[in-house]
Amino acid sequence: MHSAPPHVLTAGLTLLAILIAAIAMGLFRKPLDRVYITGGSSGLGRALAVELVRRGAHVTVVARDLRKLEETTAALKPLASPSQLISHISADLTSAESSEAALNDAVVAWGGKAPDHVYLCAGFSRPKFFVDMDAQHMKEGLDGVYWVSAYTAHAAVKRMVAQRVRGKIVFVSSFLGYTTFAGYTSYSPGKYALRGLADALRSEMLLHNISVHIFMSAGILGPGFDAENEHKPAITRKIEEGDKPDEPEVVMRAMISGIEKGHYQITNLLITDLIRVGAAGPVPGNGPLDFVYSLIGGIEIGDDLSPILPAPTAFAF
Amino acid sequence: MHSAPPHVLTAGLTLLAILIAAIAMGLFRKPLDRVYITGGSSGLGRALAVELVRRGAHVTVVARDLRKLEETTAALKPLASPSQLISHISADLTSAESSEAALNDAVVAWGGKAPDHVYLCAGFSRPKFFVDMDAQHMKEGLDGVYWVSAYTAHAAVKRMVAQRVRGKIVFVSSFLGYTTFAGYTSYSPGKYALRGLADALRSEMLLHNISVHIFMSAGILGPGFDAENEHKPAITRKIEEGDKPDEPEVVMRAMISGIEKGHYQITNLLITDLIRVGAAGPVPGNGPLDFVYSLIGGIEIGDDLSPILPAPTAFAF
Repeated sequence: MHSAPPHVLTAGLTLLAILIAAIAMGLFRKPLDRVYITGGSSGLGRALAVELVRRGAHVTVVARDLRKLEETTAALKPLASPSQLISHISADLTSAESSEAALNDAVVAWGGKAPDHVYLCAGFSRPKFFVDMDAQHMKEGLDGVYWVSAYTAHAAVKRMVAQRVRGKIVFVSSFLGYTTFAGYTSYSPGKYALRGLADALRSEMLLHNISVHIFMSAGILGPGFDAENEHKPAITRKIEEGDKPDEPEVVMRAMISGIEKGHYQITNLLITDLIRVGAAGPVPGNGPLDFVYSLIGGIEIGDDLSPILPAPTAFAF
Repeated sequence: MHSAPPHVLTAGLTLLAILIAAIAMGLFRKPLDRVYITGGSSGLGRALAVELVRRGAHVTVVARDLRKLEETTAALKPLASPSQLISHISADLTSAESSEAALNDAVVAWGGKAPDHVYLCAGFSRPKFFVDMDAQHMKEGLDGVYWVSAYTAHAAVKRMVAQRVRGKIVFVSSFLGYTTFAGYTSYSPGKYALRGLADALRSEMLLHNISVHIFMSAGILGPGFDAENEHKPAITRKIEEGDKPDEPEVVMRAMISGIEKGHYQITNLLITDLIRVGAAGPVPGNGPLDFVYSLIGGIEIGDDLSPILPAPTAFAF
């Protein structure tokens, strides 16, 4: 063995010094994630904003109510490092124009770069019997469930594809986007429609390295849930009496965990998984456990008004 | 044994004569079915109108194009008896107001009585990539698939329930309302949404003795299909190259047969049945064969762009 000649040692040390300086200057640092969250001022969207700010992302929350947005960013900023950009935009996301305008506003802070993570958490539910609602209620239901997410997805995907940004589009549907019952004729069509959009978009986005996910959430506690219950028909309430909605933080963790596992249709309840394997169709499943769920069996509704567990009237196959 | 006294015989013969006269006068005859068919001037809707006129129903067809409507009623009238009422109404069914107005017009001929059979066959498909469409294309897609049926269903159900008319509401969705792929982001959301509406409405209508059906049709030959193919992206065409669309009459017979069997979700292709048992969720199935279909297995899409049979990349369970 012999020691390295002094000039080789000097060159090595110089290179090492340059590398350390480059790391210190952030030249090798991955740029921060640009996260765009609709419905980000309350419930699931806000819980997600808190978590992703803690994880070091740039976060823009979008919602309608300016006061709640201001309150949200005031709560988010203390959690952020000085390099993280935290902002909010007030917009009516049921309109295509203002959905696109909101996104255009958001990207200004990112030097025009498209978001790389889009979480579509906006939406609301107002259960009512079909025979008791007017056409306006039907239209507002679809606007507030489907368009509120579809227009933003469209604006974001177009910008991401144009800039070759690889990222994620995450829709939020519902257990009631797999199957449904009396009381949800103005809600479930939009939640099913989101699944139709996600199923088709997932396929198209394989061409562009953008991953699409859809979270089939069970009930989430909060002001949205309280408003939903205010006018819920008695029969709908009866069908759901076994349900146990979760806190937004718990639901948010299930959603992030599903995304991290690479699941396409993400669930947060065993019964949703049972329904998923019998209702998702031939889109990608979530792994070997799906086989176990399929053995537990497809659940079939009988002709009664308790169409879901815990009181099914017939188990088929 | 002894013969009946003459006055008993006379009374019996008189009763018999009254009964024969009553039958001849139609007093015991079931009133003719009042049938309302949207999209009734072409394709599936028109084939259905022809068949139901032949079966002796009152039939009103609704569509936008007045010339095609006039041509349709001219073809229907020679098939009808003098007691059958055949008429047409031109209306834009993507608007709630004109959907309701069209129904109000239709019932005038029936003395204000609600239809007892409503067939929702209107709709169109214009495949396009999500990244290539504008928001107007998205909106027109949903209007022309979802609202074109949902508003009429709403107006009809309200009138039927108010008059305690027992009858049927039949939606027309699609194979692409179970699962979908690149090219259908403006079409499948509406077809999924119709399934969401039908699933919730089926449950609510158990309270009112109205049966709800949804026909998950495979491709139907005709002008609608030709228009769909005109701008179809090459990838979408490739995915569908194994498909064999049927003539409207063949499809119509499958739909009527499904209704007669009491199926809730009606199919007209083996592969649709395979998808149905893995995509319908816990709504009522179509009988013992469903078990066989479930054994053939859930079909899972791999991460490629041939997401449906005949070339699936993975079979799960």
